[in-house]
Amino acid sequence: MEMKLPGQEGFEASSAPRNIPSGELDSNPDPGTGPSPDGPSDTESKELGVPKDPLLFIQLNELLGWPQALEWRETGRWVLFEEKLEVAAGRWSAPHVPTLALPSLQKLRSLLAEGLVLLDCPAQSLLELVEQVTRVESLSPELRGQLQALLLQRPQHYNQTTGTRPCWGSTHPRKASDNEEAPLREQCQNPLRQKLPPGAEAGTVLAGELGFLAQPLGAFVRLRNPVVLGSLTEVSLPSRFFCLLLGPCMLGKGYHEMGRAAAVLLSDPQFQWSVRRASNLHDLLAALDAFLEEVTVLPPGRWDPTARIPPPKCLPSQHKRLPSQQREIRGPAVPRLTSAEDRHRHGPHAHSPELQRTGRKVPWYPSDFLDALHLQCFSAVLYIYLATVTNAITFGGLLGDATDGAQGVLESFLGTAVAGAAFCLMAGQPLTILSSTGPVLVFERLLFSFSRDYSLDYLPFRLWVGIWVATFCLVLVATEASVLVRYFTRFTEEGFCALISLIFIYDAVGKMLNLTHTYPIQKPGSSAYGCLCQYPGPGGNESQWIRTRPKDRDDIVSMVRKGLSDFSSVLAILLGCGLDAFLGLATPKLMVPREFKPTLPGRGWLVSPFGANPWWWSVAAALPALLLSILIFMDQQITAVILNRMEYRLQKGAGFHLDLFCVAVLMLLTSALGLPWYVSATVISLAHMDSLRRESRACAPGERPNFLGIREQRLTGLVVFILTGASIFLAPVLKFIPMPVLYGIFLYMGVAALSSIQFTNRVKLLLMPAKHQPDLLLLRHVPLTRVHLFTAIQLACLGLLWIIKSTPAAIIFPLMLLGLVGVRKALERVFSPQELLWLDELMPEEERSIPEKGLEPEHSFSGSDSEDSELMYQPKAPEINISVN
Amino acid sequence: MEMKLPGQEGFEASSAPRNIPSGELDSNPDPGTGPSPDGPSDTESKELGVPKDPLLFIQLNELLGWPQALEWRETGRWVLFEEKLEVAAGRWSAPHVPTLALPSLQKLRSLLAEGLVLLDCPAQSLLELVEQVTRVESLSPELRGQLQALLLQRPQHYNQTTGTRPCWGSTHPRKASDNEEAPLREQCQNPLRQKLPPGAEAGTVLAGELGFLAQPLGAFVRLRNPVVLGSLTEVSLPSRFFCLLLGPCMLGKGYHEMGRAAAVLLSDPQFQWSVRRASNLHDLLAALDAFLEEVTVLPPGRWDPTARIPPPKCLPSQHKRLPSQQREIRGPAVPRLTSAEDRHRHGPHAHSPELQRTGRKVPWYPSDFLDALHLQCFSAVLYIYLATVTNAITFGGLLGDATDGAQGVLESFLGTAVAGAAFCLMAGQPLTILSSTGPVLVFERLLFSFSRDYSLDYLPFRLWVGIWVATFCLVLVATEASVLVRYFTRFTEEGFCALISLIFIYDAVGKMLNLTHTYPIQKPGSSAYGCLCQYPGPGGNESQWIRTRPKDRDDIVSMVRKGLSDFSSVLAILLGCGLDAFLGLATPKLMVPREFKPTLPGRGWLVSPFGANPWWWSVAAALPALLLSILIFMDQQITAVILNRMEYRLQKGAGFHLDLFCVAVLMLLTSALGLPWYVSATVISLAHMDSLRRESRACAPGERPNFLGIREQRLTGLVVFILTGASIFLAPVLKFIPMPVLYGIFLYMGVAALSSIQFTNRVKLLLMPAKHQPDLLLLRHVPLTRVHLFTAIQLACLGLLWIIKSTPAAIIFPLMLLGLVGVRKALERVFSPQELLWLDELMPEEERSIPEKGLEPEHSFSGSDSEDSELMYQPKAPEINISVN
Repeated sequence: MEMKLPGQEGFEASSAPRNIPSGELDSNPDPGTGPSPDGPSDTESKELGVPKDPLLFIQLNELLGWPQALEWRETGRWVLFEEKLEVAAGRWSAPHVPTLALPSLQKLRSLLAEGLVLLDCPAQSLLELVEQVTRVESLSPELRGQLQALLLQRPQHYNQTTGTRPCWGSTHPRKASDNEEAPLREQCQNPLRQKLPPGAEAGTVLAGELGFLAQPLGAFVRLRNPVVLGSLTEVSLPSRFFCLLLGPCMLGKGYHEMGRAAAVLLSDPQFQWSVRRASNLHDLLAALDAFLEEVTVLPPGRWDPTARIPPPKCLPSQHKRLPSQQREIRGPAVPRLTSAEDRHRHGPHAHSPELQRTGRKVPWYPSDFLDALHLQCFSAVLYIYLATVTNAITFGGLLGDATDGAQGVLESFLGTAVAGAAFCLMAGQPLTILSSTGPVLVFERLLFSFSRDYSLDYLPFRLWVGIWVATFCLVLVATEASVLVRYFTRFTEEGFCALISLIFIYDAVGKMLNLTHTYPIQKPGSSAYGCLCQYPGPGGNESQWIRTRPKDRDDIVSMVRKGLSDFSSVLAILLGCGLDAFLGLATPKLMVPREFKPTLPGRGWLVSPFGANPWWWSVAAALPALLLSILIFMDQQITAVILNRMEYRLQKGAGFHLDLFCVAVLMLLTSALGLPWYVSATVISLAHMDSLRRESRACAPGERPNFLGIREQRLTGLVVFILTGASIFLAPVLKFIPMPVLYGIFLYMGVAALSSIQFTNRVKLLLMPAKHQPDLLLLRHVPLTRVHLFTAIQLACLGLLWIIKSTPAAIIFPLMLLGLVGVRKALERVFSPQELLWLDELMPEEERSIPEKGLEPEHSFSGSDSEDSELMYQPKAPEINISVN
Repeated sequence: MEMKLPGQEGFEASSAPRNIPSGELDSNPDPGTGPSPDGPSDTESKELGVPKDPLLFIQLNELLGWPQALEWRETGRWVLFEEKLEVAAGRWSAPHVPTLALPSLQKLRSLLAEGLVLLDCPAQSLLELVEQVTRVESLSPELRGQLQALLLQRPQHYNQTTGTRPCWGSTHPRKASDNEEAPLREQCQNPLRQKLPPGAEAGTVLAGELGFLAQPLGAFVRLRNPVVLGSLTEVSLPSRFFCLLLGPCMLGKGYHEMGRAAAVLLSDPQFQWSVRRASNLHDLLAALDAFLEEVTVLPPGRWDPTARIPPPKCLPSQHKRLPSQQREIRGPAVPRLTSAEDRHRHGPHAHSPELQRTGRKVPWYPSDFLDALHLQCFSAVLYIYLATVTNAITFGGLLGDATDGAQGVLESFLGTAVAGAAFCLMAGQPLTILSSTGPVLVFERLLFSFSRDYSLDYLPFRLWVGIWVATFCLVLVATEASVLVRYFTRFTEEGFCALISLIFIYDAVGKMLNLTHTYPIQKPGSSAYGCLCQYPGPGGNESQWIRTRPKDRDDIVSMVRKGLSDFSSVLAILLGCGLDAFLGLATPKLMVPREFKPTLPGRGWLVSPFGANPWWWSVAAALPALLLSILIFMDQQITAVILNRMEYRLQKGAGFHLDLFCVAVLMLLTSALGLPWYVSATVISLAHMDSLRRESRACAPGERPNFLGIREQRLTGLVVFILTGASIFLAPVLKFIPMPVLYGIFLYMGVAALSSIQFTNRVKLLLMPAKHQPDLLLLRHVPLTRVHLFTAIQLACLGLLWIIKSTPAAIIFPLMLLGLVGVRKALERVFSPQELLWLDELMPEEERSIPEKGLEPEHSFSGSDSEDSELMYQPKAPEINISVN
């Protein structure tokens, strides 16, 4: 079928790999291990030392107006997705997944098979290229001249910069001259230019009906050295590919569709990869056939072919489509890096490999401060500062309540500032925010009532408990007990997280309801009958946040918008404060002590080691200390595990042992000074991390911003705690903040944390009829009743924990928390490993005891599993549990 | 390529159209004009007198377990969409659009081309069928026996009724016996059976690997008379098609995918249509090729083939896919019926043809009462009653205010009851709810201050205005002036609707703020310092409604859920009342007068015709009456036009003239009795209509419930007004309803009406950067700046109307409203007809003056327009502006 045309042999002969232009394969002369046809995220290939193929911008120029007013017009463009020019509306369509009709692909194939294929064409300008392309036997010299003139005519591009009516370039066709070869000013100023990465190349498809042609004319050209072909493309990029599809008039939109098919083909990563390396027509057609082999076909009766499919959240992996040699090199890297992300969202998840290595933090230390120089960090500081201060106020108040003023708000501020700042400077994971947590507060409340029952001097007794806890924790550090964290599966983590979230919500609501005692609801008949107060309560703040967030998350353009959304939480707080001040409401305000002295009258800053207690109480303190150690260990490590999950792509490593060591040392310090005890706070730390997300900006139309990682640095945390410390002296400013606004932050954080865990989704499933349930991967693999059973057990555990927390038996609460691990272990007898893999994750023994094959779901013939495993390869940005800005 | 097999010729010879089973084409012997391959909505074909092809249920049985434990298992099923058995989870997947790989379709084609094709096979049982199918030359007698035994083996169906683990039928394969041919109990009890319409047929695809076969075995059978083939299908339906795809073991999931391809093919309406009429292998392959010609192809690099696409909101029209003969018959019906619906949502819309015919209401009269016997009507009565009472209270109160008690709440109740009930009994469009409306109230307020300025006796003066208005309206009726309604385009309608919505919102908010005068906000320093009230205000109710509605709308299963959602508005009101009562709040309650006498002291029920006024005022009253007539005409007719839009599919016709006649007569009556004036209320009438939507219940998995129409009857309206009348005596019950709850209804109705109009969407576009704008058809065809210009003009008109309404010039307000039509007419000089077609609709002259071709968008070469016009054919359920239950 292949037509031999003048000049073609020459190019084909010169198209061996040695002729592939330099710069493309320089560092990697073997084409088999060359660049990969994967998407635009280039970190992976950089790691492997393989240069990537340049990104390709493809443009479709159509020949319109036959026969009177022939002109070329750009009607479509492709980078990842298709954009179509809406001629009447004068704008580019939203990017969408291109859909083709099968016949247009088949027609394109036969046209290319019979047409001219020039691979590694040496043309240096549009003029040379046009001369090469028109050197076809079937054309008479006269026709050839006409065709050349037509091809040199400047195409009309829709000019994006002038926003009004579709403004085409010049409408007067001009003959080509030397000046014509220079790119136009509009081409260079095209805003698309900034979005494309450096080194991007262009491919142009020219298609249309030309009445004077007797038979169709197809040509496909790969330029040896990409050059800017005058004003051919709307962006001044060097062109690599050139495809010409002309022919006599035919019914329908044949050439339009064929041109689109060619453009879509060129935009396919696999086809692009193959055609960059093709040495003859056979290779080109083979690449087209490979494309056809892999297309997805939608039946005409069930899918409207004119429907525009919005870009999917994640592009399909090109992993399986790679040639086998390629796959071997890159293969293992991709699934290992991303499967955990997928499991986090849809099914099983894995622990970070960081659990093994610690103490490699020193090299990062300078960058831990330099990386903080970004506006985003400023916003993060403000938000986390407010959360921390609220936390300090609330827990300080509760602690003062619970310990009869042995500690109070001042201690809470001071302790938070000192411990937090010290931790930020020393810790392995500086993104962690140290704070008082619910479980520790509960324990301290019990400890105080215990010491009162035995008429003990509380603070000295507490000092000894602290000393013992620090000792136990140091033993745990020395024995590298953090490895036990592997037994904290999702079951335990989510149970713990749910408990803390519920405490947050309970406290926020409880505090609000408590206000009704101080500021009671006035009923008819009471003295103040007829009053009406508008109250900026937490509900208002919360809904405000929830409403502003989801929209602003996805793809933010203007800096103004991004800036506003970054400060949405602060704005909500200011709005609440402003409304309160405007209405002059009688709300309780943040109360900051004015004098710098311990809350308990008469004590100094240093706690005496024995006080009025008999000496042997210092030994007996070891028993409660043991329980507290368990609590601290679990609280600290579960937070650490969650923060160090692989999906957050932390670069600087974790520090499980170092962090626990720091907590132990600070435990000693705070006990000695009579300050509250501190561990890593899950919710605030996650909020901190999320406020430091980095996402890619410059990306192809329709592409979602990539999650690039977290701004890992110590400065935001440090500043937060310095500010917290300074807040002791900020009483005149802070007194304008109404407490209900702060409870709103608490409520929001609790609700957000609760709604982010898989457990909550499973609880919702309990209440949902099967027909309405979402298509979760989990539900494809585990029978619904088993899912419900697992959820019910988890709910029962949570209920039990809540009850124990609220009864006098609460002192053994830490043991019960540890009991979660036991319950999870017992579940191995109820659920099969396959089910646990989807519902939870496997414990270390299970992982070992089950052969590799055993983890495959049982009915391997169902065909569903290879499909699902495919999903695992999709690189996804993690959805961080709490997102605030 | 076609293999001639024993017995095949005989069947092919007998497959001429005369052998097509009776009942399918009885009424229409010409196959060219036979049933159509359109979707399941069968009203259209019924109208045309053409019987439809039966619905086809397709099931894929796969042969699994080679070589040890061969068994057939159902792994997929299709009605409209694909459902896949999730083996591990033991449930059917959510219905989704099937996606295929191209090679599987090509392999299927070659297997069928070389295989056995039996069209009009006379087999009466599975045994006979299996004998026919296995009569293939390539099989040895021994293999044939083995194959027959295998095919007779009972397949394992997933039993949906037992909800727990995947419960297959019997797992022990049994030999076929006579008993085996009887359908199993599970088959008859299958819940899917109820969802499929009567007359549905089954198609079965059997696919799998069979190691002892030397070469692939493909067979396609169409049974002459469909029979229940024992337990072959999971539902006991008569089988029409049978497809067998067996072969030696091969790599991958070849037979699984081929089986899916065959099933998807069979589920395609066009293929089904062709294959029911195919007379030989050639026809079958031609149908397959026609399918391939029309498939939509998604590129592998931009679409994950394993992604499951949820069923689209509307299925693509099969209109264009029909054979040409078919299209001619059915062609005009489809676009005429549905394009208006589409235009309503996306672009231009058209007036109801009802504008021409009136006075055909008598035949419907009995059914107008019988059709009301449905629970839904009960709920509608409750909801509309509450809205009407709120309206009566509010407008009655405002009117009493504005007229110094010349009218009041009692008059409002009485008038609403009398006028509304009379209208419901007499009117052409009994779904209309008559009530006081904002514009009329504004006018009456002006009239009163005018009469006070001239020291007139108000009620007698008003009586004369009413008499004149009635006269003018009767003239309008006699001259059939309702035809002028054609000049009320969307521009006018939406301007009017936006104005009324804004009045609703303004009144609700204003009323709430007025309450702060009576019940002021207590500030610190006031006597009641420190009070705190929780207030169930309108915002609370509204958000509750908005939150519960969208979920409940789409696809409701259980009767409980549907019942709850039907009463959600009532529940919200009860909740508000309950909360108010529980907290014992000092809210103002609904105040219903206790004595039945006119509000104005000293007047009787009948207004004296002159009172203290000079006689010539009765003539002068004609001037304000002229203005009021314009207002009444516009208010009444715009509401009527909106209610009678074609997308609501009203069956009983409208009555523009009759309705206006009724309004005129009632105008006379209410003026004579000194009651408020009434016209049709847009918002409440729409809410009434929406609460009476009928939707289809039994539908294929994944299919959205079809909008079937409105329960058109007179009873709900009548009962509402009888209840309203009775409410005069309900004071002891109604006094528990807090006014803020009722304002909430007002606010909600205003917001819902405002958010439903296209104008609001265009206002939002003003504030949205182009990148974030939704992909509206409108925006594909009109440049953004032109859209903005149109919106800005509309906004300016609205602002002007609002200002005039609020100033002393308000008396000419009705003229200004009419001025909207003039502004719209003037817009013809600013915008092109193409633009107006998308932004608004065309006025009668424009429609006539522009040639058919002129309406085509200007750049017909862009290719986008044929795509869009395709969208117009999609049958859609209308989105009624306000949906409440």
